[in-house]
Amino acid sequence: MKTYRRELWFEVPTRRGFVNITPQVEECLAASGIREGLCLVNAMHITASVFINDDEPGLHGDFERWLENLAPFDPDGYQHHRTGEDNGDAHLKRTIMGREVVVAVTGGKLDFGPWEQIFYGEFDGRRRKRSLVKIIGE
Amino acid sequence: MKTYRRELWFEVPTRRGFVNITPQVEECLAASGIREGLCLVNAMHITASVFINDDEPGLHGDFERWLENLAPFDPDGYQHHRTGEDNGDAHLKRTIMGREVVVAVTGGKLDFGPWEQIFYGEFDGRRRKRSLVKIIGE
Amino acid sequence: MKTYRRELWFEVPTRRGFVNITPQVEECLAASGIREGLCLVNAMHITASVFINDDEPGLHGDFERWLENLAPFDPDGYQHHRTGEDNGDAHLKRTIMGREVVVAVTGGKLDFGPWEQIFYGEFDGRRRKRSLVKIIGE
Repeated sequence: MKTYRRELWFEVPTRRGFVNITPQVEECLAASGIREGLCLVNAMHITASVFINDDEPGLHGDFERWLENLAPFDPDGYQHHRTGEDNGDAHLKRTIMGREVVVAVTGGKLDFGPWEQIFYGEFDGRRRKRSLVKIIGE
Repeated sequence: MKTYRRELWFEVPTRRGFVNITPQVEECLAASGIREGLCLVNAMHITASVFINDDEPGLHGDFERWLENLAPFDPDGYQHHRTGEDNGDAHLKRTIMGREVVVAVTGGKLDFGPWEQIFYGEFDGRRRKRSLVKIIGE
Repeated sequence: MKTYRRELWFEVPTRRGFVNITPQVEECLAASGIREGLCLVNAMHITASVFINDDEPGLHGDFERWLENLAPFDPDGYQHHRTGEDNGDAHLKRTIMGREVVVAVTGGKLDFGPWEQIFYGEFDGRRRKRSLVKIIGE
């Protein structure tokens, strides 16, 4: 069995944003030499997400508006803020979007459906944060 | 290490519906000959879900009503529809329900709790779509 | 390839509660002898969750209030209750929080970001229930 690990670093200049990280994950897979297996990609921070959806700006606008409605940014609105933080909403938004994806590796490629792309979802940006890529297989 | 891959195809005749795919995943596992490992099942489309819950029609009705409340079908309500689509709600519903499940394989069986069943969740049906089963182990 | 399996049992004395299970999962990993691979932790019950977030009581209070708002406990409010159950909300709450996490194993450790901790999320407690830890790798 082979394994491969790499951290992907980001500094999203705004509080919230989505970054298509499919090319970087494909680079990891190529570097791993793994042809059959599973590829885990997860946010290493608890106010960020890794998810799969379409790379379409209108959809990303819909996600932004929808998440703001389900878990609004509100400096005075969360018990978590007693610790001095203002990012309670980001913990909830990331919960909706998910921490991680597991993608099949087949024939040396990410085994995607027609529109699947991997995104890093930032909900408390303006600082350096990272995701983990871990691939196992052979 | 052994690996196994199969696509499961669906054509749900309505816009939304849930299909219990546990028997097909069990067939995949039997065909794989894998006795210990992990089984990934994921939607290959970004308006569909694979999730685990109970096979109980009342619960499925609750999911339907709840998702419609959290992310209503609305042909005029999503920025994504500027592309000509009308399925913005389906992208959001699938996000709540999740893209994928990973199930342990133990002694050649899906290692389930008492009521766990795997479902394909369709949120933009009336056309042929598919899920992926990928099993690794030995 | 090595594999390891253990069930973790809980009896949360209240209907809802969060239990930090990171130490037990670390014990599983140590017992497995696996140094590189993937660790799946999933709820075996469909009214419970396994998720990763911060071990901060204010945040857990925020989760509780937020989930109650998105999927309220309501003995008369769910079709699922025609079966005699009163836990329809618990199925929905667990869907938001997620069934499972997959954590990378690197150098014999759970490969976590700075604040990641694994929780068992109970939404219909006051009885014995369990989670599954399955680790594969070498």
